[in-house]
Amino acid sequence: MKRVAIVGTGLIGASVGLALKAGGFQGHIAGWDADAAELAIALKMGAIDEALPGREAVLTAKADVYVLATPVMAIMDWMQQLAPSVGKGQLVTDVGSTKREIALLAGKLYGAQGQALFLPGHPMAGKESGGAALAEAGLFNGATWLFTPLDDFTSGIEELWRIQVGRFGAHVRELSPQQHDEVCAWVSHLPQMVSTALAALLEDTFSHDPEGMAAVQAIGGRALRETTRLGASPYSMWRDVALTNTGPISQTLLALEQRLAHLRENLRTPGMRDEFTMANRFKAGSGNSAT
Amino acid sequence: MKRVAIVGTGLIGASVGLALKAGGFQGHIAGWDADAAELAIALKMGAIDEALPGREAVLTAKADVYVLATPVMAIMDWMQQLAPSVGKGQLVTDVGSTKREIALLAGKLYGAQGQALFLPGHPMAGKESGGAALAEAGLFNGATWLFTPLDDFTSGIEELWRIQVGRFGAHVRELSPQQHDEVCAWVSHLPQMVSTALAALLEDTFSHDPEGMAAVQAIGGRALRETTRLGASPYSMWRDVALTNTGPISQTLLALEQRLAHLRENLRTPGMRDEFTMANRFKAGSGNSAT
Repeated sequence: MKRVAIVGTGLIGASVGLALKAGGFQGHIAGWDADAAELAIALKMGAIDEALPGREAVLTAKADVYVLATPVMAIMDWMQQLAPSVGKGQLVTDVGSTKREIALLAGKLYGAQGQALFLPGHPMAGKESGGAALAEAGLFNGATWLFTPLDDFTSGIEELWRIQVGRFGAHVRELSPQQHDEVCAWVSHLPQMVSTALAALLEDTFSHDPEGMAAVQAIGGRALRETTRLGASPYSMWRDVALTNTGPISQTLLALEQRLAHLRENLRTPGMRDEFTMANRFKAGSGNSAT
Repeated sequence: MKRVAIVGTGLIGASVGLALKAGGFQGHIAGWDADAAELAIALKMGAIDEALPGREAVLTAKADVYVLATPVMAIMDWMQQLAPSVGKGQLVTDVGSTKREIALLAGKLYGAQGQALFLPGHPMAGKESGGAALAEAGLFNGATWLFTPLDDFTSGIEELWRIQVGRFGAHVRELSPQQHDEVCAWVSHLPQMVSTALAALLEDTFSHDPEGMAAVQAIGGRALRETTRLGASPYSMWRDVALTNTGPISQTLLALEQRLAHLRENLRTPGMRDEFTMANRFKAGSGNSAT
């Protein structure tokens, strides 16, 4: 593993570059981004050694490992474009937020005789704002890095990439693409939609009432800050998540709507006690874990 | 101001005692709690100087300032019980989470010729778990402490209490009881209900599926942790909030349910972009403030 190409040098892509170097990777890291400013920042901060001049240069970069670190729809575009240009001994991997559609496409384009391998991946790390400027070598330290492998077969180059991910300080966990998308709907996509809805609702309610907005901002504390933090997240990334995981997100949203309605109808009945008891149990059960 | 009595020596009450001492208060602090263990902890940690032996001892404590720091319904009970035992020159104040019903009752029992004054208060500070053991002298440092005064008249003892609150490091802000309860429904009660509903839904969905629960706990990161943190909050306190602010909480819950349904129906349309744009604007507008 001598050459790595990072396609998409935003927060995650640039952090992968920094983490590779912090982990002792001695090879060459090329990078490309659709946004020239992001690419320049990634180069300047040392996340990549070389800024590839265009899409064509990505296809001819002859990397041992390609890391696709764009939003999901662009990852699938790159999977199509790269497939004819890469072959045996090369690995293409990604960091996209949904895995079912990516794994389906990968099964069609990669992994057969003479083709490059594809390893679908998803580091559970990020920030509510994107961009290379926020990248950190330690972003994945202690985080879970999910893989949804296409089959049991692993090649040497895939092993080397897994070792690198381990050096980032990430904990690797494997699951099926279907399981991945269902669990992520609960633990990531639903919290995102709730934060967005709550922040949008507050903006809609108070944006024409400066005195009310001032009171909301002065009085709101940690509870409001935490439940609306993800409201700052960019549409560009979440559009693709919603397009490629519509079913599970829709189901979890509907379940939460019904749960909120139930709580609302029980604000003055013992039914509210049952909801608090169940919520307390979830928090107690999750103990010292991330939840 | 030589004698303070803290009625309810849990997280907030014991923190008030510690903050008074840290702020240089030289007088005597008596305390009482319905839970003898909480009272013993508060005494042992030095939040109070004296543990009052029973309810009767509270009524005869001859405090200059009574701080009612129990859940809201118990605050209103104490307001009734205390009124005949206190008089001119004495102040009764509270730290309850809702203010409309408390201010209404205070208007009937306090503030007339020969009666003690009542100053409704609400520090915007707390933790998801209660109890004196978690109390801190610095809990109110940097927090907003709301007052919803009954009228413009302030007495010397009220001024002294306001000075103490300033010494806690809290920022005082005044508003009407109605405004208080409406704004708090948005910035505190709604986030609480969302956290409780989300945590209860996850418990309900995964408690009979150990493998799924393990995946939720392993994969869930900061997003899940923050949006469910308040799920650990105790029913005992929130029951009273729901009982005394049912209308505003019900309205904000219904508005959020509708917003989530709208987002769900627009997961694959440009309508989702509008929601993200509006949420981004709320977070940008709140700038460096608490929200």
